[in-house]
Amino acid sequence: MEIKVKKKITKEWFIELKKLICKNIEDLEKEYGSKIKFKRNKWKYGEFNKIEGEVIEKGGVAFSNVIGKFPKEFAKKIPGAKKKNYFWSSGVSVVLHPKNPKVPAMHFNTRFICTQKAWFGGGMDVTPNIKDNIEKKKIHKELKKMCDKHNTKFYPKYKKWCDQYFYLPHRNETRGIGGIFFDYKMDNWDKDFLFVKDVGITFANLIKKIVRKKMFFKWTKKDKEIQLLKRGRYVEFNLLYDRGTKFGLNSGGNSDAILMSMPPNAKWK
Amino acid sequence: MEIKVKKKITKEWFIELKKLICKNIEDLEKEYGSKIKFKRNKWKYGEFNKIEGEVIEKGGVAFSNVIGKFPKEFAKKIPGAKKKNYFWSSGVSVVLHPKNPKVPAMHFNTRFICTQKAWFGGGMDVTPNIKDNIEKKKIHKELKKMCDKHNTKFYPKYKKWCDQYFYLPHRNETRGIGGIFFDYKMDNWDKDFLFVKDVGITFANLIKKIVRKKMFFKWTKKDKEIQLLKRGRYVEFNLLYDRGTKFGLNSGGNSDAILMSMPPNAKWK
Repeated sequence: MEIKVKKKITKEWFIELKKLICKNIEDLEKEYGSKIKFKRNKWKYGEFNKIEGEVIEKGGVAFSNVIGKFPKEFAKKIPGAKKKNYFWSSGVSVVLHPKNPKVPAMHFNTRFICTQKAWFGGGMDVTPNIKDNIEKKKIHKELKKMCDKHNTKFYPKYKKWCDQYFYLPHRNETRGIGGIFFDYKMDNWDKDFLFVKDVGITFANLIKKIVRKKMFFKWTKKDKEIQLLKRGRYVEFNLLYDRGTKFGLNSGGNSDAILMSMPPNAKWK
Repeated sequence: MEIKVKKKITKEWFIELKKLICKNIEDLEKEYGSKIKFKRNKWKYGEFNKIEGEVIEKGGVAFSNVIGKFPKEFAKKIPGAKKKNYFWSSGVSVVLHPKNPKVPAMHFNTRFICTQKAWFGGGMDVTPNIKDNIEKKKIHKELKKMCDKHNTKFYPKYKKWCDQYFYLPHRNETRGIGGIFFDYKMDNWDKDFLFVKDVGITFANLIKKIVRKKMFFKWTKKDKEIQLLKRGRYVEFNLLYDRGTKFGLNSGGNSDAILMSMPPNAKWK
Protein backbone atom coordinates (compact mmCIF):
# COMPACT_ATOMS: atom_id res chain seq x y z
CA MET A 1 0.00 0.00 0.00
CA GLU A 2 1.24 3.46 -0.82
CA ILE A 3 2.19 5.66 2.15
CA LYS A 4 -0.35 8.24 0.91
CA VAL A 5 -3.14 5.72 1.34
CA LYS A 6 -1.88 4.65 4.75
CA LYS A 7 -1.92 8.26 5.90
CA LYS A 8 -5.47 8.71 4.64
CA ILE A 9 -6.78 5.55 6.30
CA THR A 10 -5.13 6.16 9.68
CA LYS A 11 -6.27 9.78 9.75
CA GLU A 12 -9.85 8.73 9.04
CA TRP A 13 -9.63 6.16 11.83
CA PHE A 14 -8.33 8.68 14.34
CA ILE A 15 -11.20 11.04 13.51
CA GLU A 16 -13.68 8.20 14.02
CA LEU A 17 -12.04 7.16 17.29
CA LYS A 18 -12.08 10.73 18.61
CA LYS A 19 -15.85 10.83 18.01
CA LEU A 20 -16.40 7.49 19.74
CA ILE A 21 -14.43 8.48 22.82
CA CYS A 22 -16.23 11.82 23.12
CA LYS A 23 -19.57 10.05 22.76
CA ASN A 24 -18.74 7.51 25.48
CA ILE A 25 -17.75 10.27 27.90
CA GLU A 26 -20.88 12.30 27.12
CA ASP A 27 -22.93 9.13 27.72
CA LEU A 28 -21.41 8.86 31.20
CA GLU A 29 -22.22 12.49 31.97
CA LYS A 30 -25.79 11.78 30.85
CA GLU A 31 -26.07 8.68 33.03
CA TYR A 32 -24.90 10.80 35.95
CA GLY A 33 -27.63 13.33 35.27
CA SER A 34 -25.43 16.04 33.77
CA LYS A 35 -26.08 17.68 30.42
CA ILE A 36 -22.50 18.81 29.95
CA LYS A 37 -20.92 18.08 26.57
CA PHE A 38 -17.56 18.61 24.92
CA LYS A 39 -16.56 22.01 23.61
CA ARG A 40 -14.86 21.81 20.27
CA ASN A 41 -11.73 23.88 19.62
CA LYS A 42 -10.37 23.79 16.10
CA TRP A 43 -6.90 24.91 15.19
CA LYS A 44 -4.63 24.71 12.16
CA TYR A 45 -3.53 21.11 12.70
CA GLY A 46 -6.54 19.51 14.29
CA GLU A 47 -8.96 19.95 17.11
CA PHE A 48 -8.94 19.54 20.85
CA ASN A 49 -12.22 18.91 22.54
CA LYS A 50 -12.56 19.82 26.15
CA ILE A 51 -15.14 18.87 28.74
CA GLU A 52 -15.60 20.36 32.18
CA GLY A 53 -18.22 17.97 33.41
CA GLU A 54 -19.72 16.67 36.60
CA VAL A 55 -18.16 13.25 36.13
CA ILE A 56 -15.04 14.27 34.24
CA GLU A 57 -13.93 17.46 35.98
CA LYS A 58 -11.50 18.19 33.16
CA GLY A 59 -11.07 16.06 30.11
CA GLY A 60 -9.45 16.53 26.76
CA VAL A 61 -9.79 14.54 23.55
CA ALA A 62 -7.49 15.81 20.84
CA PHE A 63 -7.19 14.82 17.23
CA SER A 64 -4.19 16.15 15.38
CA ASN A 65 -2.67 15.93 11.94
CA VAL A 66 0.54 17.91 11.95
CA ILE A 67 2.85 18.40 9.00
CA GLY A 68 6.11 20.10 9.81
CA LYS A 69 9.82 19.98 10.45
CA PHE A 70 11.55 18.90 13.62
CA PRO A 71 14.15 21.25 15.10
CA LYS A 72 17.50 19.80 13.99
CA GLU A 73 18.77 18.75 17.42
CA PHE A 74 15.48 17.01 18.14
CA ALA A 75 15.41 15.33 14.71
CA LYS A 76 18.65 13.47 15.45
CA LYS A 77 16.84 11.27 17.93
CA ILE A 78 13.90 10.47 15.64
CA PRO A 79 14.02 7.45 13.28
CA GLY A 80 14.20 8.45 9.63
CA ALA A 81 14.58 12.16 10.44
CA LYS A 82 18.35 12.53 10.60
CA LYS A 83 18.84 13.60 6.99
CA LYS A 84 15.42 14.99 6.20
CA ASN A 85 13.78 16.49 9.26
CA TYR A 86 10.20 16.81 8.00
CA PHE A 87 7.39 14.72 9.36
CA TRP A 88 3.72 13.89 9.03
CA SER A 89 1.84 12.80 12.10
CA SER A 90 -1.69 12.04 13.05
CA GLY A 91 -3.17 10.73 16.26
CA VAL A 92 -5.63 10.91 19.10
CA SER A 93 -4.73 11.87 22.68
CA VAL A 94 -6.98 11.64 25.67
CA VAL A 95 -6.52 12.73 29.28
CA LEU A 96 -9.36 12.42 31.76
CA HIS A 97 -9.33 13.91 35.26
CA PRO A 98 -12.52 12.71 36.97
CA LYS A 99 -14.02 14.78 39.77
CA ASN A 100 -14.61 11.85 42.13
CA PRO A 101 -11.25 10.97 43.75
CA LYS A 102 -12.27 7.30 43.75
CA VAL A 103 -12.28 7.25 39.95
CA PRO A 104 -8.76 7.03 38.50
CA ALA A 105 -7.33 9.49 36.00
CA MET A 106 -6.90 7.94 32.55
CA HIS A 107 -4.59 8.63 29.68
CA PHE A 108 -4.56 7.30 26.12
CA ASN A 109 -2.76 8.02 22.90
CA THR A 110 -2.31 6.37 19.52
CA ARG A 111 -0.48 7.92 16.63
CA PHE A 112 0.95 7.27 13.18
CA ILE A 113 4.17 9.12 12.42
CA CYS A 114 5.91 9.34 9.06
CA THR A 115 9.43 10.60 8.44
CA GLN A 116 11.63 8.67 5.99
CA LYS A 117 10.22 5.81 8.06
CA ALA A 118 6.66 5.26 9.30
CA TRP A 119 5.47 3.79 12.58
CA PHE A 120 2.71 3.54 15.12
CA GLY A 121 3.00 4.42 18.78
CA GLY A 122 0.69 4.76 21.71
CA GLY A 123 -0.73 3.20 24.79
CA MET A 124 -2.88 3.86 27.77
CA ASP A 125 -2.32 4.07 31.49
CA VAL A 126 -4.41 4.51 34.59
CA THR A 127 -3.63 6.65 37.65
CA PRO A 128 -5.78 5.90 40.69
CA ASN A 129 -5.64 8.10 43.77
CA ILE A 130 -6.76 5.39 46.13
CA LYS A 131 -5.47 1.83 45.92
CA ASP A 132 -7.86 -0.75 44.47
CA ASN A 133 -6.22 -4.05 43.63
CA ILE A 134 -9.36 -5.58 42.17
CA GLU A 135 -9.73 -2.72 39.72
CA LYS A 136 -6.03 -2.92 38.84
CA LYS A 137 -6.30 -6.64 38.06
CA LYS A 138 -9.41 -6.15 35.93
CA ILE A 139 -7.81 -3.43 33.85
CA HIS A 140 -4.66 -5.43 33.21
CA LYS A 141 -6.72 -8.53 32.42
CA GLU A 142 -8.64 -6.58 29.74
CA LEU A 143 -5.42 -5.25 28.27
CA LYS A 144 -3.81 -8.69 28.24
CA LYS A 145 -6.85 -10.24 26.57
CA MET A 146 -6.81 -7.60 23.85
CA CYS A 147 -3.04 -7.86 23.29
CA ASP A 148 -3.09 -11.67 23.23
CA LYS A 149 -5.48 -11.63 20.26
CA HIS A 150 -2.67 -10.04 18.26
CA ASN A 151 0.49 -11.55 19.72
CA THR A 152 1.08 -13.11 23.14
CA LYS A 153 4.42 -11.32 23.33
CA PHE A 154 2.77 -7.89 23.23
CA TYR A 155 1.25 -7.66 26.70
CA PRO A 156 4.36 -8.47 28.77
CA LYS A 157 6.52 -6.31 26.52
CA TYR A 158 4.22 -3.30 26.42
CA LYS A 159 3.25 -3.55 30.07
CA LYS A 160 6.92 -3.41 31.04
CA TRP A 161 7.52 -0.52 28.65
CA CYS A 162 4.63 1.34 30.28
CA ASP A 163 5.97 0.72 33.80
CA GLN A 164 9.38 1.99 32.79
CA TYR A 165 8.00 5.01 31.00
CA PHE A 166 5.46 6.26 33.54
CA TYR A 167 7.96 6.49 36.35
CA LEU A 168 9.11 9.52 38.35
CA PRO A 169 12.78 8.90 39.23
CA HIS A 170 13.04 11.98 41.48
CA ARG A 171 10.18 10.62 43.58
CA ASN A 172 11.00 6.95 43.14
CA GLU A 173 7.32 6.47 42.35
CA THR A 174 5.30 5.09 39.45
CA ARG A 175 2.73 7.46 37.98
CA GLY A 176 -0.07 4.99 38.53
CA ILE A 177 -0.86 1.31 37.99
CA GLY A 178 0.55 1.26 34.47
CA GLY A 179 -1.11 -0.13 31.38
CA ILE A 180 0.52 -0.65 27.98
CA PHE A 181 2.91 1.52 26.00
CA PHE A 182 4.58 0.97 22.63
CA ASP A 183 6.49 3.00 20.09
CA TYR A 184 8.31 2.71 16.74
CA LYS A 185 5.97 -0.13 15.77
CA MET A 186 6.75 -0.87 12.15
CA ASP A 187 6.70 -4.65 11.80
CA ASN A 188 3.80 -5.19 9.45
CA TRP A 189 1.62 -2.23 8.61
CA ASP A 190 -1.70 -4.07 8.27
CA LYS A 191 -1.27 -6.01 11.47
CA ASP A 192 0.10 -3.00 13.35
CA PHE A 193 -2.90 -0.93 12.28
CA LEU A 194 -5.33 -3.64 13.41
CA PHE A 195 -3.60 -3.64 16.78
CA VAL A 196 -3.69 0.17 17.05
CA LYS A 197 -7.40 0.17 16.26
CA ASP A 198 -7.99 -2.47 18.91
CA VAL A 199 -6.09 -0.39 21.50
CA GLY A 200 -8.40 2.51 20.71
CA ILE A 201 -11.62 0.50 20.94
CA THR A 202 -10.47 -1.13 24.16
CA PHE A 203 -9.76 2.26 25.73
CA ALA A 204 -13.13 3.64 24.61
CA ASN A 205 -14.83 0.68 26.34
CA LEU A 206 -12.58 0.77 29.42
CA ILE A 207 -13.53 4.39 30.14
CA LYS A 208 -17.16 3.35 30.52
CA LYS A 209 -16.35 0.35 32.69
CA ILE A 210 -13.92 2.16 34.99
CA VAL A 211 -15.90 5.37 35.43
CA ARG A 212 -19.42 3.93 35.61
CA LYS A 213 -18.47 1.63 38.45
CA LYS A 214 -17.37 4.39 40.78
CA MET A 215 -18.82 7.71 39.68
CA PHE A 216 -21.56 7.57 42.30
CA PHE A 217 -19.22 6.54 45.15
CA LYS A 218 -19.08 8.85 48.14
CA TRP A 219 -15.80 10.50 48.92
CA THR A 220 -14.34 12.50 51.79
CA LYS A 221 -12.30 15.67 52.07
CA LYS A 222 -9.28 13.49 52.73
CA ASP A 223 -9.90 11.56 49.48
CA LYS A 224 -9.97 14.91 47.62
CA GLU A 225 -6.71 15.96 49.29
CA ILE A 226 -5.06 12.72 48.18
CA GLN A 227 -6.33 13.31 44.65
CA LEU A 228 -4.95 16.86 44.52
CA LEU A 229 -1.51 15.74 45.69
CA LYS A 230 -1.58 12.90 43.14
CA ARG A 231 -2.47 15.44 40.47
CA GLY A 232 0.66 17.35 41.51
CA ARG A 233 2.68 14.26 40.64
CA TYR A 234 0.83 14.02 37.34
CA VAL A 235 1.93 17.58 36.54
CA GLU A 236 5.51 16.77 37.52
CA PHE A 237 5.60 13.75 35.23
CA ASN A 238 4.08 15.51 32.24
CA LEU A 239 6.29 18.57 32.42
CA LEU A 240 9.55 16.92 33.50
CA TYR A 241 9.51 13.67 31.52
CA ASP A 242 6.67 13.19 29.07
CA ARG A 243 7.98 12.76 25.55
CA GLY A 244 4.59 13.65 24.06
CA THR A 245 4.75 17.03 25.77
CA LYS A 246 8.33 17.58 24.61
CA PHE A 247 7.48 16.34 21.09
CA GLY A 248 4.53 18.71 20.97
CA LEU A 249 6.32 21.77 22.28
CA ASN A 250 9.28 21.03 19.97
CA SER A 251 7.26 20.47 16.82
CA GLY A 252 5.29 23.68 16.80
CA GLY A 253 2.30 22.09 18.45
CA ASN A 254 -0.54 24.07 19.97
CA SER A 255 0.44 24.60 23.60
CA ASP A 256 -3.19 24.74 24.71
CA ALA A 257 -3.76 21.37 23.09
CA ILE A 258 -0.55 19.89 24.50
CA LEU A 259 -1.09 21.20 28.02
CA MET A 260 -4.68 19.99 27.93
CA SER A 261 -3.23 17.12 29.95
CA MET A 262 -2.82 19.37 32.99
CA PRO A 263 -5.33 18.61 35.75
CA PRO A 264 -7.91 21.27 36.66
CA ASN A 265 -6.07 21.82 39.93
CA ALA A 266 -3.27 20.31 41.99
CA LYS A 267 -1.53 20.65 45.32
CA TRP A 268 1.98 20.37 46.67
CA LYS A 269 2.88 19.80 50.30
CA MET B 1 43.04 33.46 48.59
CA GLU B 2 42.98 29.69 48.56
CA ILE B 3 39.85 28.06 47.13
CA LYS B 4 39.41 26.22 50.46
CA VAL B 5 39.10 29.53 52.25
CA LYS B 6 36.69 30.91 49.65
CA LYS B 7 34.47 27.88 50.09
CA LYS B 8 34.49 28.31 53.88
CA ILE B 9 33.66 32.02 53.76
CA THR B 10 30.87 31.71 51.20
CA LYS B 11 29.31 28.78 53.02
CA GLU B 12 29.30 30.74 56.27
CA TRP B 13 27.69 33.68 54.50
CA PHE B 14 24.95 31.53 53.00
CA ILE B 15 24.14 30.11 56.44
CA GLU B 16 23.94 33.62 57.87
CA LEU B 17 21.76 34.83 54.99
CA LYS B 18 19.39 31.87 55.36
CA LYS B 19 18.87 32.84 59.01
CA LEU B 20 18.25 36.49 58.16
CA ILE B 21 15.68 35.68 55.47
CA CYS B 22 13.82 33.26 57.76
CA LYS B 23 13.80 35.87 60.51
CA ASN B 24 12.40 38.55 58.22
CA ILE B 25 9.59 36.29 57.10
CA GLU B 26 8.78 35.25 60.66
CA ASP B 27 8.70 38.95 61.60
CA LEU B 28 6.06 39.53 58.92
CA GLU B 29 3.96 36.64 60.21
CA LYS B 30 4.21 38.16 63.68
CA GLU B 31 3.18 41.62 62.45
CA TYR B 32 0.17 39.97 60.84
CA GLY B 33 -0.76 38.37 64.13
CA SER B 34 0.30 34.83 63.28
CA LYS B 35 2.62 32.75 65.43
CA ILE B 36 3.67 30.46 62.61
CA LYS B 37 7.38 29.83 62.21
CA PHE B 38 9.63 27.88 59.87
CA LYS B 39 9.98 24.13 60.21
CA ARG B 40 13.55 23.00 59.82
CA ASN B 41 14.32 19.95 57.67
CA LYS B 42 17.90 18.75 57.68
CA TRP B 43 19.33 16.40 55.11
CA LYS B 44 22.73 15.14 54.07
CA TYR B 45 23.71 18.22 52.07
CA GLY B 46 21.96 21.03 53.87
CA GLU B 47 18.60 22.05 55.16
CA PHE B 48 15.37 23.32 53.73
CA ASN B 49 13.16 25.33 55.95
CA LYS B 50 9.49 25.45 55.19
CA ILE B 51 6.76 27.75 56.37
CA GLU B 52 3.02 27.34 55.91
CA GLY B 53 1.98 30.66 57.31
CA GLU B 54 -0.91 33.07 57.23
CA VAL B 55 1.06 35.59 55.19
CA ILE B 56 3.30 33.21 53.28
CA GLU B 57 0.98 30.33 52.37
CA LYS B 58 3.96 28.22 51.34
CA GLY B 59 7.54 29.34 51.54
CA GLY B 60 10.86 27.60 51.40
CA VAL B 61 14.30 28.80 52.38
CA ALA B 62 16.97 26.25 51.55
CA PHE B 63 20.65 26.22 52.33
CA SER B 64 22.71 23.60 50.58
CA ASN B 65 26.32 22.52 50.37
CA VAL B 66 26.53 19.67 47.91
CA ILE B 67 29.67 17.77 46.97
CA GLY B 68 29.27 15.36 44.12
CA LYS B 69 29.75 14.43 40.49
CA PHE B 70 27.71 15.60 37.55
CA PRO B 71 26.30 12.96 35.21
CA LYS B 72 28.70 12.95 32.23
CA GLU B 73 26.27 14.32 29.63
CA PHE B 74 25.29 17.15 31.97
CA ALA B 75 28.94 17.90 32.87
CA LYS B 76 29.76 18.73 29.25
CA LYS B 77 27.73 21.91 29.50
CA ILE B 78 29.26 23.07 32.81
CA PRO B 79 32.42 25.24 32.83
CA GLY B 80 35.44 23.41 34.20
CA ALA B 81 33.61 20.06 34.41
CA LYS B 82 34.37 18.55 31.02
CA LYS B 83 37.41 16.57 32.11
CA LYS B 84 36.75 16.20 35.81
CA ASN B 85 33.05 16.09 36.55
CA TYR B 86 33.11 16.64 40.30
CA PHE B 87 31.77 19.79 41.90
CA TRP B 88 31.36 21.64 45.16
CA SER B 89 28.41 23.97 45.52
CA SER B 90 26.83 26.03 48.20
CA GLY B 91 23.95 28.45 48.12
CA VAL B 92 20.65 29.73 49.37
CA SER B 93 17.36 29.40 47.50
CA VAL B 94 14.10 31.04 48.42
CA VAL B 95 10.61 30.73 46.97
CA LEU B 96 7.69 32.50 48.60
CA HIS B 97 4.06 31.95 47.67
CA PRO B 98 2.02 34.47 49.67
CA LYS B 99 -1.61 33.70 50.50
CA ASN B 100 -2.94 37.12 49.53
CA PRO B 101 -3.23 37.24 45.71
CA LYS B 102 -2.31 40.92 45.79
CA VAL B 103 1.14 40.08 47.14
CA PRO B 104 3.48 38.81 44.41
CA ALA B 105 5.36 35.52 44.58
CA MET B 106 9.10 36.01 45.07
CA HIS B 107 12.11 33.97 44.15
CA PHE B 108 15.77 34.36 45.09
CA ASN B 109 18.95 32.36 44.77
CA THR B 110 22.65 32.94 45.18
CA ARG B 111 25.28 30.24 44.91
CA PHE B 112 29.01 29.58 44.68
CA ILE B 113 29.96 26.67 42.46
CA CYS B 114 33.41 25.11 42.12
CA THR B 115 34.51 22.68 39.45
CA GLN B 116 37.97 23.18 37.88
CA LYS B 117 36.63 26.73 37.79
CA ALA B 118 34.72 28.66 40.43
CA TRP B 119 31.91 31.16 40.01
CA PHE B 120 28.93 32.88 41.55
CA GLY B 121 25.41 32.84 40.20
CA GLY B 122 22.01 33.94 41.33
CA GLY B 123 19.35 36.56 41.16
CA MET B 124 15.85 37.34 42.20
CA ASP B 125 12.56 37.84 40.40
CA VAL B 126 9.06 38.82 41.30
CA THR B 127 5.79 37.34 40.00
CA PRO B 128 2.69 39.40 40.68
CA ASN B 129 -0.77 38.05 39.96
CA ILE B 130 -2.33 41.46 39.52
CA LYS B 131 -0.63 44.26 37.62
CA ASP B 132 0.87 47.07 39.72
CA ASN B 133 3.16 49.37 37.78
CA ILE B 134 4.13 51.44 40.81
CA GLU B 135 5.31 48.35 42.66
CA LYS B 136 7.18 47.16 39.58
CA LYS B 137 9.02 50.47 39.25
CA LYS B 138 9.95 50.54 42.93
CA ILE B 139 11.38 47.03 42.85
CA HIS B 140 13.46 47.72 39.76
CA LYS B 141 14.62 51.02 41.23
CA GLU B 142 15.89 49.23 44.34
CA LEU B 143 17.67 46.63 42.25
CA LYS B 144 19.25 49.26 40.02
CA LYS B 145 20.43 51.27 43.03
CA MET B 146 22.07 48.21 44.55
CA CYS B 147 23.67 47.10 41.27
CA ASP B 148 24.97 50.62 40.48
CA LYS B 149 26.98 50.63 43.72
CA HIS B 150 29.04 47.80 42.24
CA ASN B 151 29.07 48.51 38.53
CA THR B 152 26.65 50.55 36.42
CA LYS B 153 26.79 47.88 33.73
CA PHE B 154 25.32 45.24 36.04
CA TYR B 155 21.70 46.33 36.23
CA PRO B 156 20.94 46.57 32.48
CA LYS B 157 22.86 43.36 31.82
CA TYR B 158 21.35 41.31 34.63
CA LYS B 159 17.85 42.70 34.13
CA LYS B 160 17.95 41.62 30.50
CA TRP B 161 19.33 38.21 31.46
CA CYS B 162 16.45 37.83 33.91
CA ASP B 163 13.84 38.77 31.32
CA GLN B 164 15.28 36.29 28.86
CA TYR B 165 15.54 33.55 31.44
CA PHE B 166 12.13 33.80 33.12
CA TYR B 167 10.19 33.43 29.91
CA LEU B 168 7.71 30.74 28.84
CA PRO B 169 8.12 30.35 25.06
CA HIS B 170 5.18 27.95 24.73
CA ARG B 171 2.91 30.60 26.27
CA ASN B 172 4.73 33.59 24.83
CA GLU B 173 4.60 35.05 28.35
CA THR B 174 7.10 36.29 30.89
CA ARG B 175 6.98 34.61 34.29
CA GLY B 176 6.51 37.90 36.09
CA ILE B 177 7.98 41.41 36.13
CA GLY B 178 11.57 40.19 36.12
CA GLY B 179 14.37 41.28 38.39
CA ILE B 180 18.05 40.44 38.00
CA PHE B 181 19.80 37.22 37.05
CA PHE B 182 23.49 36.41 36.61
CA ASP B 183 25.65 33.33 36.25
CA TYR B 184 29.26 32.23 35.71
CA LYS B 185 30.42 35.35 37.54
CA MET B 186 34.17 34.95 37.96
CA ASP B 187 35.71 38.35 37.28
CA ASN B 188 37.23 39.22 40.62
CA TRP B 189 36.41 37.00 43.55
CA ASP B 190 36.40 39.67 46.27
CA LYS B 191 34.26 42.08 44.29
CA ASP B 192 31.96 39.31 43.07
CA PHE B 193 31.44 38.11 46.63
CA LEU B 194 30.62 41.65 47.83
CA PHE B 195 28.03 41.88 45.06
CA VAL B 196 26.53 38.49 45.92
CA LYS B 197 26.23 39.50 49.55
CA ASP B 198 24.53 42.73 48.57
CA VAL B 199 22.03 40.84 46.38
CA GLY B 200 21.18 38.70 49.41
CA ILE B 201 20.73 41.64 51.79
CA THR B 202 18.67 43.53 49.23
CA PHE B 203 16.34 40.56 48.80
CA ALA B 204 15.97 40.11 52.57
CA ASN B 205 14.91 43.77 52.82
CA LEU B 206 12.71 43.68 49.72
CA ILE B 207 10.63 40.84 51.14
CA LYS B 208 9.62 43.05 54.05
CA LYS B 209 8.86 46.04 51.86
CA ILE B 210 6.85 44.14 49.26
CA VAL B 211 4.85 41.93 51.62
CA ARG B 212 4.19 44.41 54.41
CA LYS B 213 2.63 46.89 52.02
CA LYS B 214 -0.07 44.52 50.81
CA MET B 215 -0.53 41.69 53.27
CA PHE B 216 -3.64 43.31 54.81
CA PHE B 217 -5.21 44.16 51.44
CA LYS B 218 -8.65 42.71 50.77
CA TRP B 219 -8.99 40.31 47.89
CA THR B 220 -11.84 38.67 45.99
CA LYS B 221 -12.54 35.15 44.78
CA LYS B 222 -11.63 36.35 41.30
CA ASP B 223 -8.21 37.56 42.57
CA LYS B 224 -7.64 34.08 44.06
CA GLU B 225 -8.61 32.45 40.76
CA ILE B 226 -6.09 34.64 38.90
CA GLN B 227 -3.44 33.69 41.46
CA LEU B 228 -4.10 29.96 41.06
CA LEU B 229 -3.85 30.16 37.26
CA LYS B 230 -0.64 32.20 37.59
CA ARG B 231 0.72 29.53 39.92
CA GLY B 232 0.01 27.02 37.15
CA ARG B 233 2.35 29.01 34.92
CA TYR B 234 4.91 29.06 37.73
CA VAL B 235 4.79 25.26 37.83
CA GLU B 236 5.14 25.07 34.05
CA PHE B 237 8.21 27.28 34.09
CA ASN B 238 9.93 25.46 36.93
CA LEU B 239 9.39 21.98 35.56
CA LEU B 240 9.84 22.70 31.85
CA TYR B 241 12.66 25.24 31.85
CA ASP B 242 14.26 26.03 35.18
CA ARG B 243 17.95 25.18 35.16
CA GLY B 244 18.08 25.12 38.96
CA THR B 245 15.48 22.36 38.98
CA LYS B 246 17.34 20.43 36.27
CA PHE B 247 20.68 21.01 38.02
CA GLY B 248 19.22 19.77 41.27
CA LEU B 249 17.54 16.69 39.89
CA ASN B 250 20.67 15.88 37.86
CA SER B 251 23.15 16.33 40.68
CA GLY B 252 21.60 14.01 43.22
CA GLY B 253 19.79 16.82 44.99
CA ASN B 254 16.99 16.25 47.46
CA SER B 255 13.81 16.30 45.39
CA ASP B 256 11.75 17.59 48.31
CA ALA B 257 14.17 20.50 48.64
CA ILE B 258 14.25 21.15 44.89
CA LEU B 259 10.50 20.95 44.42
CA MET B 260 9.99 23.18 47.44
CA SER B 261 9.48 25.83 44.75
CA MET B 262 6.12 24.32 43.81
CA PRO B 263 3.19 26.46 44.91
CA PRO B 264 0.79 25.06 47.54
CA ASN B 265 -1.84 24.72 44.83
CA ALA B 266 -2.46 25.67 41.22
CA LYS B 267 -5.11 25.57 38.53
CA TRP B 268 -5.27 25.01 34.81
CA LYS B 269 -8.13 26.07 32.57
